Amino acid sequence: MGNSENENLSVVLYKRREEKPQCDIVLENRPVREPAGDEVVLKMNSVGICGSDVHYWLNGRIGDFIVKEPMVIGHEAAGTVVRCGKDVKHLKPGDRVAIEPGYPLCSDEFSKSGRYNLSPVYFCATPPDHGNLQRFYTHKGSFCHKLPDNVSFEEGALIEPLSVGIHACRRAQIGLGHRVLICGAGPIGLVSLLSAKAMGAASIVVTDLSSNRLDKAKELGANFTYQIKLDEKPQDVAKKIEEILGGMPDRTIECTGAESAVQTGIYATKSGGCLLLVGMGPQNVTVPLVNAAVREVDIKGVFRYCNTWPTAISMLASGQINVKPLVTHRFPLEKSQEAFEYTRDGKGIKVMLKCDPEDQGA
Amino acid sequence: MGNSENENLSVVLYKRREEKPQCDIVLENRPVREPAGDEVVLKMNSVGICGSDVHYWLNGRIGDFIVKEPMVIGHEAAGTVVRCGKDVKHLKPGDRVAIEPGYPLCSDEFSKSGRYNLSPVYFCATPPDHGNLQRFYTHKGSFCHKLPDNVSFEEGALIEPLSVGIHACRRAQIGLGHRVLICGAGPIGLVSLLSAKAMGAASIVVTDLSSNRLDKAKELGANFTYQIKLDEKPQDVAKKIEEILGGMPDRTIECTGAESAVQTGIYATKSGGCLLLVGMGPQNVTVPLVNAAVREVDIKGVFRYCNTWPTAISMLASGQINVKPLVTHRFPLEKSQEAFEYTRDGKGIKVMLKCDPEDQGA
Amino acid sequence: MGNSENENLSVVLYKRREEKPQCDIVLENRPVREPAGDEVVLKMNSVGICGSDVHYWLNGRIGDFIVKEPMVIGHEAAGTVVRCGKDVKHLKPGDRVAIEPGYPLCSDEFSKSGRYNLSPVYFCATPPDHGNLQRFYTHKGSFCHKLPDNVSFEEGALIEPLSVGIHACRRAQIGLGHRVLICGAGPIGLVSLLSAKAMGAASIVVTDLSSNRLDKAKELGANFTYQIKLDEKPQDVAKKIEEILGGMPDRTIECTGAESAVQTGIYATKSGGCLLLVGMGPQNVTVPLVNAAVREVDIKGVFRYCNTWPTAISMLASGQINVKPLVTHRFPLEKSQEAFEYTRDGKGIKVMLKCDPEDQGA
Amino acid sequence: MGNSENENLSVVLYKRREEKPQCDIVLENRPVREPAGDEVVLKMNSVGICGSDVHYWLNGRIGDFIVKEPMVIGHEAAGTVVRCGKDVKHLKPGDRVAIEPGYPLCSDEFSKSGRYNLSPVYFCATPPDHGNLQRFYTHKGSFCHKLPDNVSFEEGALIEPLSVGIHACRRAQIGLGHRVLICGAGPIGLVSLLSAKAMGAASIVVTDLSSNRLDKAKELGANFTYQIKLDEKPQDVAKKIEEILGGMPDRTIECTGAESAVQTGIYATKSGGCLLLVGMGPQNVTVPLVNAAVREVDIKGVFRYCNTWPTAISMLASGQINVKPLVTHRFPLEKSQEAFEYTRDGKGIKVMLKCDPEDQGA
Repeated sequence: MGNSENENLSVVLYKRREEKPQCDIVLENRPVREPAGDEVVLKMNSVGICGSDVHYWLNGRIGDFIVKEPMVIGHEAAGTVVRCGKDVKHLKPGDRVAIEPGYPLCSDEFSKSGRYNLSPVYFCATPPDHGNLQRFYTHKGSFCHKLPDNVSFEEGALIEPLSVGIHACRRAQIGLGHRVLICGAGPIGLVSLLSAKAMGAASIVVTDLSSNRLDKAKELGANFTYQIKLDEKPQDVAKKIEEILGGMPDRTIECTGAESAVQTGIYATKSGGCLLLVGMGPQNVTVPLVNAAVREVDIKGVFRYCNTWPTAISMLASGQINVKPLVTHRFPLEKSQEAFEYTRDGKGIKVMLKCDPEDQGA
Repeated sequence: MGNSENENLSVVLYKRREEKPQCDIVLENRPVREPAGDEVVLKMNSVGICGSDVHYWLNGRIGDFIVKEPMVIGHEAAGTVVRCGKDVKHLKPGDRVAIEPGYPLCSDEFSKSGRYNLSPVYFCATPPDHGNLQRFYTHKGSFCHKLPDNVSFEEGALIEPLSVGIHACRRAQIGLGHRVLICGAGPIGLVSLLSAKAMGAASIVVTDLSSNRLDKAKELGANFTYQIKLDEKPQDVAKKIEEILGGMPDRTIECTGAESAVQTGIYATKSGGCLLLVGMGPQNVTVPLVNAAVREVDIKGVFRYCNTWPTAISMLASGQINVKPLVTHRFPLEKSQEAFEYTRDGKGIKVMLKCDPEDQGA
Repeated sequence: MGNSENENLSVVLYKRREEKPQCDIVLENRPVREPAGDEVVLKMNSVGICGSDVHYWLNGRIGDFIVKEPMVIGHEAAGTVVRCGKDVKHLKPGDRVAIEPGYPLCSDEFSKSGRYNLSPVYFCATPPDHGNLQRFYTHKGSFCHKLPDNVSFEEGALIEPLSVGIHACRRAQIGLGHRVLICGAGPIGLVSLLSAKAMGAASIVVTDLSSNRLDKAKELGANFTYQIKLDEKPQDVAKKIEEILGGMPDRTIECTGAESAVQTGIYATKSGGCLLLVGMGPQNVTVPLVNAAVREVDIKGVFRYCNTWPTAISMLASGQINVKPLVTHRFPLEKSQEAFEYTRDGKGIKVMLKCDPEDQGA
Repeated sequence: MGNSENENLSVVLYKRREEKPQCDIVLENRPVREPAGDEVVLKMNSVGICGSDVHYWLNGRIGDFIVKEPMVIGHEAAGTVVRCGKDVKHLKPGDRVAIEPGYPLCSDEFSKSGRYNLSPVYFCATPPDHGNLQRFYTHKGSFCHKLPDNVSFEEGALIEPLSVGIHACRRAQIGLGHRVLICGAGPIGLVSLLSAKAMGAASIVVTDLSSNRLDKAKELGANFTYQIKLDEKPQDVAKKIEEILGGMPDRTIECTGAESAVQTGIYATKSGGCLLLVGMGPQNVTVPLVNAAVREVDIKGVFRYCNTWPTAISMLASGQINVKPLVTHRFPLEKSQEAFEYTRDGKGIKVMLKCDPEDQGA
């Protein structure tokens, strides 16, 4: 028999204590939050671990967001509806859904103009909001997106990172026939690669320090890869990229946050193009801003994503984007500590936690 | 031995005589026009036949463009540079090129703002401008686009119709995850299908009266096809399309010119979407314009294309668009009359004329 | 002493009876609806009469929207907050506000992508939703926009029609230096004129059948006016417009709904430009769609507006748009019947109803 | 009697000699260059002095552009056509024109896509290309724009700096109702102010170190000004700006090039907005790029302008932009040295040189 709402094992991060190098990860049984009228209760299936989850675990904070109270972790997730609030019309118990972890104040001007990611939001596993790495989780119904039969729970969970790639490539206005440089072959570099390809990029080069990661990029469709050396100058990398692509990239998606990669992005990108910053680096960076400005290379960033779930679901259902190769490891919910250690140690690409004792497979 | 500039066999359309049902197609030897400083002489290889070529042959005119003087026909073409004007820097003899058949007055305001297709132009095989279905042809160098080794002459010639699809899909702003309806499975419907898919459309339905044509659409990647019956009402077709796609199409590309298809396009397209008109029908049509207006369905058309050759070449070179299945028949230049008859009779999709006696293959 | 919530005189439209030529307008005292948590109760000040209000009065319906139950009329309105639901944070009693009459289902995909006007909505005085021509009215707080001290109630009420002009000009992408044709010099033509001018149009011609209306357009800043004769051919009008503007208009805003004006708009608009349809005419019209398509003249419509109130308030507050000359008549709420008759008879431009017995002035 | 082509007094900058602190400005008689088929000979009337002209005079170079051969200076200019090359159709002797100083290689891909400013160009008074501060000057006909009778030569000359403002505001996508911050009240800050206002900005604050310059900004329509103190922190300035505007600016136009102003621009600009860089500062700057990225504040630059002359002429002719107050001093061509000294010393806003001995007035 399956799990029931009486037992709601949850993976909770506790406030980091002074004497400890990192937060405690504690498995504990927590009450299932009653759904409001516009909410649903979900039986969780798959939750991916994100770099930010690990960052919270290791540091107890990201910027001004500090873990002060015990917080359920996890925000790349999919599950099954078990109960619906009275106002939820588009879902019913039994529906399989992918969870969009953040939602806005819909009366806010950003929200009204279609950029709800810039609104003050609830966001899973960002203090003080709880995440969904547990057996049962209650979420806003309109941010639970029904999965078609041919899209698996794991694919559903991977929509969260894929959304970062989609939002980045949309903001970068990647178009048919573009040459694209992607800096960094971690999960975000890889989903940017998948998104850019699906939007019509003709030729994509991915760079990284690690040849293992570049192999994965190749496997996922990169036309070219280039392994950066630590002491290579940004201008020199830019020249290499131009040689490899047979022309300067129309767009660069920077997924490392490294100052040198931002500099490379500026030097490399073709006049009139766009450098899109996804990677988060230090607060202040020194960059050749005039070089970008006088060549009309636009520099843009992203904050999460908006309006990506329906798009992603369509692309996964039609088979035009395939995220399955991203999952390299699986652990049962009970072994979350071990899964976090794996991710911290950079083993594999995406580690998936399986919340349903009766469904631990892909 | 191969052909030389002394022998320039050309396919010439003569003014339609009153007593004749159609223009005469005459093969004659014509002088090779000396290149101006910014022009190149090309040894022609492959020239596709377009519906408009056949229309000129059968009617002697398209709208206000009338064949009054003998005119070389042909405008979907690729060949090899044999001589360059003194100002041409980006090409040299031996380069294989695809020919963009029209060029603008570059001092014109449309041209200055990047919409050079709207400028007064030279355009191959549009009276009084000659086309390029001949052994040798002289063209503006900057509208000859170098082909990489892995793109064949025939693919090069097919860039012309493909450009119509690319320009249409760009103007329709087809994006990631879109549902798309394409009305008509002739050559233009098919290149629109290829373009829409490459730009990220998740789900495409193609309609036509002919099941043969729909089979080709299926082969080229249509997710769905729907065979229209002659007496079917536009609203009913629209409902069918919605059922098939699991939602109203975000974009409709209308490639038939039929009044009923324009009506269907309006009823079918999702609010906030776009109906793109490629097919040319009668001057005046009766349409439910208010239905489109109050649902903010934009109605846009296209005039040829601009800035599509470099894009198309990149996509063909990277293999992300495959136009090869479009070619169903080949004829030597000398058998142009027969090739025109084939096209007129609707046999196959694209008929290719081979201008180089030494290279008659694919 | 002023009015209190105990007395809520309201202007109510009753279902049209078979034997009557039009609906009855009845003044009756109605209970004030208790505000939900996200709503506010407003003491109404000024409500403008719109052509659609008159249409409901005279016909009992607009399209599929039929007055079946008694319905309070009015949707161009401003008033003062008297009570706030518990969740309303941005307003407090005493705040003067302009009312955005429609609001969306914010969980809807149109709403999420910033086009909330295309969502299923509540909309004042569109059956079965009540309007606000009464002493007190309860509305969604986030669609009540605070007015600065230097923007009057009447200006606040006029934001509703102005919003139509702003949304139309935004959708038409009117830009710096544009030549613009506006068909129709009624209230919507005039607010389109004000909006186009404020967005940088260099030269605007307004057309109408009535010279009186054209005088008002001149007064409000039209560079040129042209009085159409009833039997004038669309092509001839188009030529006249080109002569007057010294070039074809980059944009045309069609505010009449007349088939001939739509045809004129197509012939007149410059290649690469846009014809924006605001006026609502018959379901089906016969138009030279090919002419628009091959010149890449985009045809777009509007459904109401979105994200216009904050913009309009800024423009009114800074004095860059002046809507005050639009108001030509004022009536107390009690004389609504007379005010409707005035509007029906085409007297003046905008008739304003004054709901507050203690504040009946401009 | 007026000047004739036999006498072509020209203001020439000579290569800076080692022992000299600056280049020599020499007045000399130079031959009038014969026009090619697409060129016209102009009798010059008014030429404004730009900061870059002064920079060349004082330093003999700007970046990699070095004055090696004697070079006629001047590029903000207007004059009268005296002779036309055989291919020039849109102009005739006697036409008064404003000169667009740069023109592209129109076969270039940037040019084909409407961004001709990014193409390799001829540009007046940028080594090795001559400027037009002389009695007669020969220029590409299609980059000479006819002035209507009600636009003066000086206004025509001022279109060059105004074009920088227009291009910047277009790239920044300034729209109706925007709050705008403009850093710097020099000529470029002022033309940005005029452009932003004309495009619909509701509320503009201009900052500068100098109160004199801010007075001019006020005179030209700034809603607010703020005098920066040298040691003020960027975050503090940003807060001040928010207070002054009653909200964060939607757009910032940075016209100083100072690192601190770029930082201010990032902190000040509203999430989802745009920081547009016009001012040229040091090659590398240290900036809080992450702050911009995660709030989706786009950072864009400009290189000169494109497609601005027709727009500017329309706006000047209709009176919606008034550049006349920018001219604070006039000198005859013969006193160019003195005029350059005035500009160097920061006296007034725009110094105008009068090239026609018979027309030295405004």
